[in-house]
Amino acid sequence: MDALDIVMNKQNVTAYLQPIISTDRQEITGYEVLGRYQDEERSISLRPFFQDKTIPEEYRREIEEQIHHQALTSFLDGNRTEHIFLNVDVDLILTDGGEHFFEKLSSYKDYGLSFSRLVLECKEHDFEGDVSRLKHFIQYVQSMGIRIALDDLGKTSTPLDEIAYLNPDIVKVDLEFLADQSFPEMYREALHSLSVLSGKIGASLLFENIKEFNQLHFAWKHGARYFQGSYLGRPDLSFLDKMTFAETLRKHFNDFLFFEKKKIEAQIELTDTLAKRLERVVKDKQNPDDIDDLTLHIADELKDLSFRVYLCNYEGFQQSGNAFLDEDGMWQYQFEEKNRNWSWRPYFLENIVRMNIEKKGILSDLYTDIHKEERIRTYSYPINENLYVFVDIPYSYLFEKDFLL
Amino acid sequence: MDALDIVMNKQNVTAYLQPIISTDRQEITGYEVLGRYQDEERSISLRPFFQDKTIPEEYRREIEEQIHHQALTSFLDGNRTEHIFLNVDVDLILTDGGEHFFEKLSSYKDYGLSFSRLVLECKEHDFEGDVSRLKHFIQYVQSMGIRIALDDLGKTSTPLDEIAYLNPDIVKVDLEFLADQSFPEMYREALHSLSVLSGKIGASLLFENIKEFNQLHFAWKHGARYFQGSYLGRPDLSFLDKMTFAETLRKHFNDFLFFEKKKIEAQIELTDTLAKRLERVVKDKQNPDDIDDLTLHIADELKDLSFRVYLCNYEGFQQSGNAFLDEDGMWQYQFEEKNRNWSWRPYFLENIVRMNIEKKGILSDLYTDIHKEERIRTYSYPINENLYVFVDIPYSYLFEKDFLL
Repeated sequence: MDALDIVMNKQNVTAYLQPIISTDRQEITGYEVLGRYQDEERSISLRPFFQDKTIPEEYRREIEEQIHHQALTSFLDGNRTEHIFLNVDVDLILTDGGEHFFEKLSSYKDYGLSFSRLVLECKEHDFEGDVSRLKHFIQYVQSMGIRIALDDLGKTSTPLDEIAYLNPDIVKVDLEFLADQSFPEMYREALHSLSVLSGKIGASLLFENIKEFNQLHFAWKHGARYFQGSYLGRPDLSFLDKMTFAETLRKHFNDFLFFEKKKIEAQIELTDTLAKRLERVVKDKQNPDDIDDLTLHIADELKDLSFRVYLCNYEGFQQSGNAFLDEDGMWQYQFEEKNRNWSWRPYFLENIVRMNIEKKGILSDLYTDIHKEERIRTYSYPINENLYVFVDIPYSYLFEKDFLL
Repeated sequence: MDALDIVMNKQNVTAYLQPIISTDRQEITGYEVLGRYQDEERSISLRPFFQDKTIPEEYRREIEEQIHHQALTSFLDGNRTEHIFLNVDVDLILTDGGEHFFEKLSSYKDYGLSFSRLVLECKEHDFEGDVSRLKHFIQYVQSMGIRIALDDLGKTSTPLDEIAYLNPDIVKVDLEFLADQSFPEMYREALHSLSVLSGKIGASLLFENIKEFNQLHFAWKHGARYFQGSYLGRPDLSFLDKMTFAETLRKHFNDFLFFEKKKIEAQIELTDTLAKRLERVVKDKQNPDDIDDLTLHIADELKDLSFRVYLCNYEGFQQSGNAFLDEDGMWQYQFEEKNRNWSWRPYFLENIVRMNIEKKGILSDLYTDIHKEERIRTYSYPINENLYVFVDIPYSYLFEKDFLL
């Protein structure tokens, strides 16, 4: 519909509120303010209006201010104690250096608004200026005690180093893509990396567009501090009781906990099983005369759950070749792999030192094997202080066992 | 200098070769081909020529082909067994759908070139078409047995999900920024995430622009499978002996190993120390009547190395408030923190299950505390099957001990 219709009929513009729920309390901790236009019998999202940069700035600013005003007035009249998340267009704000926007925002302090309850949502990908200018804006806002949420991550691609550079208080990740079950595993890996990075830089993760159970599970599993989406609360005209979703979430958490415990217990059980088997296999062989022979012996004894076996010393240099299970189920011995150094691989060295001190084996996380292009785990075990065996476990074995994938 | 000068003086265009060294063998495993223009007494990089899209495509294609031809001819004449990395402009190649380029490349097969030795280096950020078109190009190239390296990551910002989507064989990360010691820690975190992601999707990491020791150390520590840079080999006109850098690298690896072992040993030592102290502190208190009292008791006993202490149950719900050390060194007790759920935090639940089964404490990695904005570690310890204490260790303590940061 036409932008002019909206500006000429401002009375039809309404602020909707979508609840944001905290994971640690399971209570509503804030509301995102969303603009809607009432057109006869339906309510139209104003998001396209704000994203259309061909619409004059004055129009967009006027409507944005009205929406913010409606929401802030409701918030203050109701003596709300939650946070209020306002969507802002930083390009729009900075046309005059930000003076008008902050002046207007500060005027609400006279009516009881505390800046510590305000969160401004910025979309980095929409920002047309230089990223360092956005950085300065964010720092200025944070210095006023207002928090910043970096919006729409997951839906658009924002590099991790830019997120780290901008250093927002909240990282908003859009889970819309996760509704499609066929989506590649690799995107999940990328999102997992985003989750880990957020934890490292001290930003809180907010997962939005949660429309179904599996998205809620994904968010919880990947360190979401806040949840948002129609599976919980839809945008509406009024505020809700803080505890509206608490019981539902607690039930879900119990389900998630049960499942995750099963996975961790399965890993520990497999570790124990493998420890017993390796202990038996290498008994009386702690100082082998023939390392190649020992490698093949171990491989034979673990044929049911392994496709590759090799031995390394304390420095990570391979002392054996690779025992590699071929497609006919025969062990091939690749002598040329001897003397490779693996100390540069993530966690490799740490695992060797731990095995040396704790005298027990370690099961790795899932990762993609470069040669097999499938997800595997590696079990490593100390034979003596300077000899460690590495057993690569194929996807087919992990798939057959419960909870190991 | 002028583009026309280059095209009119093609005889001055020369292919230079920069060695790429593998971490696992410490030997030269490939060469990147770089174009240079000999101008009287100096040799000028042709990189700006290729990056300038205002220069006619025909000019750029002609010079690119000459450089590739020189390098491939040298490679084949010398019966080289390494990989050869050719820089390509995918926009340029796809102007005719790729027909001319692949026809020309295939002609070298008649002279003994194996496609398994070829790596094409693409710069994703330079590609002007739709990313799915680049994806199809990459898949087609890989189907021919040629490998793809995604270039210039680290120098430019490429989102992780795009890297995962494009699924290159090699991820080339530029370490030029790391020469500046003052660079924010957060970029290192972002780069670490890139390293972990590469491992997960099965791509090999190549760190380039390694000019000094600390960059080599960083690359090794973050899972580099390949090294490239003037600290090792500079671009030159000829091939080198495969083992040219092996001894130097092995010495460096020994240095890195020593340092990393010290760090891991320090973590294990601290874990043991804390286990002994907690064992003593909670002795006879495994089933406390007053959880708040126990929390403060533990806090008092660990005042020298802690700033926050709290207790959680098996499901991750906080059973105590927070004992929090204020700026005057007094423990404050924050009752309002009781009942928070932490099961969503990365590794939290896994650690609880492990503690329950293994009956011992766990020291976390370094991470940034949201409230203190500093890097901390958390030590967790089982009091009984349904009660776990979490001790947050401040940066000041970690800084004073060797190897804990």
